Amino acid sequence: MSVTDELLENNKRFAESFSVRAGAPKGPRVAVVACMDARLDPARALGLESGDAHVIRNAGGVITEDVVRSLVVSQRLLGTEEIVLVHHTDCGMLRFRDDPVKDEIESETGLRPPFALEAFTDVDGDVRQSIARIRANPFIPERDAVRGFVYDVETGRLREVR
Amino acid sequence: MSVTDELLENNKRFAESFSVRAGAPKGPRVAVVACMDARLDPARALGLESGDAHVIRNAGGVITEDVVRSLVVSQRLLGTEEIVLVHHTDCGMLRFRDDPVKDEIESETGLRPPFALEAFTDVDGDVRQSIARIRANPFIPERDAVRGFVYDVETGRLREVR
Repeated sequence: MSVTDELLENNKRFAESFSVRAGAPKGPRVAVVACMDARLDPARALGLESGDAHVIRNAGGVITEDVVRSLVVSQRLLGTEEIVLVHHTDCGMLRFRDDPVKDEIESETGLRPPFALEAFTDVDGDVRQSIARIRANPFIPERDAVRGFVYDVETGRLREVR
Repeated sequence: MSVTDELLENNKRFAESFSVRAGAPKGPRVAVVACMDARLDPARALGLESGDAHVIRNAGGVITEDVVRSLVVSQRLLGTEEIVLVHHTDCGMLRFRDDPVKDEIESETGLRPPFALEAFTDVDGDVRQSIARIRANPFIPERDAVRGFVYDVETGRLREVR
């Protein structure tokens, strides 16, 4: 049985006890941008209920053009006004550099990825870089209410990066 | 009090009862690519425990270059082998088209976004498009074990798109 099949079995059990929250939910007011890491569950770590937040995730939780696209949709079309960034300790993005991986991909496939892998060497520094990318982006309407955090995978605690 | 401050209060309570899962977790074997929608919680809907899956999310759950980047990191550097795509009913991406929104952004900011917003008109069709983008991408090492689903926000149930 594949992992995917196991997840489908889990979904059957989930759906059996599923209920839509009563009443018309107000739209979410916050967008969370977090790393894809398997130890980080933004909904549990931030106490999110259904309807509370858009959750955008990628490798590193870095601000890329696709995250800008998602934030444009989140703010302009769906009305969120705050942004919460969540990086975390022991991130996989700290354990490689772009160039050697791109060299390896090029030697295996004959094609060099035309995009950055966005590895970083300092998690606090990358949170600050992410905040700076949002503040500098002309397409994101609400870019003042952005705050960045590092989630400690050993304690579950968020630490704000200032 | 901002929404962000409320989430930080939630995190304090979460961290008080936090415990790291005993034993060295094996690495995740699956990457989930899902929409950022506030009603969709992939961890709960798929029964994911800490360590089970990378979770990548954006507006629509569409396969963009940044998702390819995240899948490259997930598979090549962190060892996942399966991909699960989760779109959902009543998606915000069904309620606009790219051009009018880009016109509006251009008229407000003087800048036309140089990226697609990735709105779509048919959720099953976009799941198939996402599977096709993965299968056609030379940078993703494991692209056969990809399956796509539509999550019903009224029932919590996943339906496979074939």
